[in-house]
Amino acid sequence: MRVLGVDPGLTRCGIGIVERRGARELVLIDCGVIRTDVDATLDQRLLQLHDELNNWIKRYKPDVIAVERVFSQLNVRTAMATGQAAGVALLLAAQSGAPIALHTPSEVKAAVSGSGRADKKQVAAMVTKILNLDAPPKPVDTTDALALAICHHWRGAGSKRIASAAAKERSRLKILKSKAKK
Amino acid sequence: MRVLGVDPGLTRCGIGIVERRGARELVLIDCGVIRTDVDATLDQRLLQLHDELNNWIKRYKPDVIAVERVFSQLNVRTAMATGQAAGVALLLAAQSGAPIALHTPSEVKAAVSGSGRADKKQVAAMVTKILNLDAPPKPVDTTDALALAICHHWRGAGSKRIASAAAKERSRLKILKSKAKK
Repeated sequence: MRVLGVDPGLTRCGIGIVERRGARELVLIDCGVIRTDVDATLDQRLLQLHDELNNWIKRYKPDVIAVERVFSQLNVRTAMATGQAAGVALLLAAQSGAPIALHTPSEVKAAVSGSGRADKKQVAAMVTKILNLDAPPKPVDTTDALALAICHHWRGAGSKRIASAAAKERSRLKILKSKAKK
Repeated sequence: MRVLGVDPGLTRCGIGIVERRGARELVLIDCGVIRTDVDATLDQRLLQLHDELNNWIKRYKPDVIAVERVFSQLNVRTAMATGQAAGVALLLAAQSGAPIALHTPSEVKAAVSGSGRADKKQVAAMVTKILNLDAPPKPVDTTDALALAICHHWRGAGSKRIASAAAKERSRLKILKSKAKK
């Protein structure tokens, strides 16, 4: 199973793709950062993000797209930009047909390091270890996206995927019913 | 000139289309609310919003898409949902080629009622008056979207469109340059 982790952001959007092989082995497939042009208008930046993220999805065909769920940002301006970027990622997931998973930063930290309050360094060290790398992944902005993908592999993804599939089915039936009424 | 106002939201997304005829007359073309299925997964809800908003844009071909810029929401959870919905609206604007405009709620209130702190009732009354309607627009959720479209018609839109076009051009040149380098 292949998981694409997305650490959403408009200035820097971290991407990490991790595949499980066999029962436990997790392998780094690729990682990178999508940056958008800070001089461009907001809509053009979201379009850039959309197009590049779409290329990643088409290239690696993930089975699940895991997106960081952010609740705790104190700055509403940043929260809005993150929300807009996350919205684009979630929309692409829906359009590609890949189920989504949302994990909070503390769930991710706890999954990879055992503590929901682990610092960046600890998370990077654990990601390096878990993926059996010689050095921490570069660029450093990809660490959270990789940790997110690892977290998804480890956190009973099965039940969530079933719940998500069931919700999609319910929603599809509702749409069909409402179309049938028209 | 035809402006599509979008009051972004995942549960209710208000839509209002207002056209200017001649020098001053503003005419209500259509308005409505996009609701998404609360039982569906987040990505499916964003896809529903995307598809329905896309239908509005294709049907009415707005010259500008005005989206509410929200900074002041205290609840980060709500801010994220609004941001995700706004992200979808802005992405669609970029894909359709219509320039975007962002106005804050207080700019909108000030434009239609003269006060940035006007309440919902005042705004509804002014929208009714400005658009020369017999009764406040229904559903009531469309009031803010209509006020946003009116605000855009009135707030020196020209200079912003020029700025936005210039920014787009700069961004396009940068992309061309970076492609040329590869």
